[in-house]
Amino acid sequence: MNTVDVVDVVDPVLRVACAQVPVDVEHPRMAYSAVSEAVSAAAQAGAALIVLPEMVNSGYHFADTDEAWSLAELVPGPWTTLLSRLSTDHGVVIVAGLAERGTDGKLYSASVVVDAGDTVGVFRKAHLWDAEHRYFTAGERATLVVETSIGRVATAVCYDIEFPEMVRAAAEEQADVLAAPVNWPLRTGPEGALPGGWPIEVHKVVAHAADYRIPIAVADRCGHERGEEFTGGSIIVGHDGVPLAGPHIVRPARPALLVADLGNVGDRRLSDHNHALTDRRPDLYPVRADEQP
Amino acid sequence: MNTVDVVDVVDPVLRVACAQVPVDVEHPRMAYSAVSEAVSAAAQAGAALIVLPEMVNSGYHFADTDEAWSLAELVPGPWTTLLSRLSTDHGVVIVAGLAERGTDGKLYSASVVVDAGDTVGVFRKAHLWDAEHRYFTAGERATLVVETSIGRVATAVCYDIEFPEMVRAAAEEQADVLAAPVNWPLRTGPEGALPGGWPIEVHKVVAHAADYRIPIAVADRCGHERGEEFTGGSIIVGHDGVPLAGPHIVRPARPALLVADLGNVGDRRLSDHNHALTDRRPDLYPVRADEQP
Repeated sequence: MNTVDVVDVVDPVLRVACAQVPVDVEHPRMAYSAVSEAVSAAAQAGAALIVLPEMVNSGYHFADTDEAWSLAELVPGPWTTLLSRLSTDHGVVIVAGLAERGTDGKLYSASVVVDAGDTVGVFRKAHLWDAEHRYFTAGERATLVVETSIGRVATAVCYDIEFPEMVRAAAEEQADVLAAPVNWPLRTGPEGALPGGWPIEVHKVVAHAADYRIPIAVADRCGHERGEEFTGGSIIVGHDGVPLAGPHIVRPARPALLVADLGNVGDRRLSDHNHALTDRRPDLYPVRADEQP
Repeated sequence: MNTVDVVDVVDPVLRVACAQVPVDVEHPRMAYSAVSEAVSAAAQAGAALIVLPEMVNSGYHFADTDEAWSLAELVPGPWTTLLSRLSTDHGVVIVAGLAERGTDGKLYSASVVVDAGDTVGVFRKAHLWDAEHRYFTAGERATLVVETSIGRVATAVCYDIEFPEMVRAAAEEQADVLAAPVNWPLRTGPEGALPGGWPIEVHKVVAHAADYRIPIAVADRCGHERGEEFTGGSIIVGHDGVPLAGPHIVRPARPALLVADLGNVGDRRLSDHNHALTDRRPDLYPVRADEQP
């Protein structure tokens, strides 16, 4: 059985940009202008898909629940209205993270896919990192894959993509690219300075892209927040795990715009006899009691 | 639910060695003396567990099926007899790859765990790479975990560990270390020269170790065979993905002995609120029809 030999790609080369912008929880509107400028520059560079960081509308380190509530936004809301306008003005698809106030009365770390003025997908982070448990509710679906005007775009948020299954979900659903808004807190131990100066998160992105032969575009943030430094590890990785743009690891992290052309999207073959998805032996892998469908 | 907080570790620090030895399908007995010397040197360096490459008894590039049959060995056979003697003489546990002739009339790329003179486990490679399909039958189980005199040792072979589930299987079964015999053919494209000069396989080992917080000890081979060069990418990675020894990537690959102490074995926590295994959301991950237990 081979379910992914035929992939519907609008353009065989997809130009993708990741905008690493500064965010500050104490000055959240600052991101609006940074994002507007970055999207304009990315569009001028010919990007068809532009990825922005996690929670770029709000910042990350909330003082308390009240602050988280005050900065989170509904969808639609001011933040998605800005993204809609930018996508229309520049004729691009945008994937961006936000602190989302759900109509169910809960907060989510979400990612929206905006195409031609419309929010065509909302994904809610399914794996919460550390203190996020205090503010956010975890989403209840695997990686979202949306058919857009420029191809099949998958999205998941930050810690999500450290789980190989979330990357596999994108590949199994024939996504052309996985767009991942992240906020990577700086690691100062040996895990933060592996070859290339890469933190372990970057190695995971490289490996998981190659595991399932799917390009991954990660937009990280820069800027300090209440004593925490962020990595600025934005990277665009091809389906073979080779970095096409970034990461540019400097301290402190700086604004950056990465642009790269993705080729061979949808090709999951590894050799004449090997295929990243159909070589799997799911009948053999461990399944816990809570893992049965 | 947290099934792995308590781990039975005989010694809180486990000294592991990976012996990167030359192998040649045209001179298969050459490996016997190289292995004897390497095990002796590793034991002198205080290693309790010694990992050897894949198919070190036979070489890799068979001319045809007859040659594969003539070089493969039964278990027990001359190769495991040598390993048994070495494990007894030096008081060490050895994990080594071999071309195995099964009593079922099939050939396997296998890995044996030898402890105090006994072969206490035989694993058969479950994911076959490229031309291996011509000679070998795939095994029918996930990563093997064996209780040995020096701790819980997991083993899988080469391409197996590129599948995150195989590494997860070792972690779920509370292995202290995953010992992986490999034969990595040299990659000459961009996938072969990522940061650190690392091929993509090394990035996968680093990432998958960190994914599931389990140390991985990879023994690769050196030596040319019928026009193919091997990577010599042996590496010992800690549970946080940090390389503790190797890889020493040079061309041509050279014999090497890596020795490292593994600490924190069995600690799968990532933060006060995060745990590599219990943070998984298996209820959300894609399950194909052939994947149901």
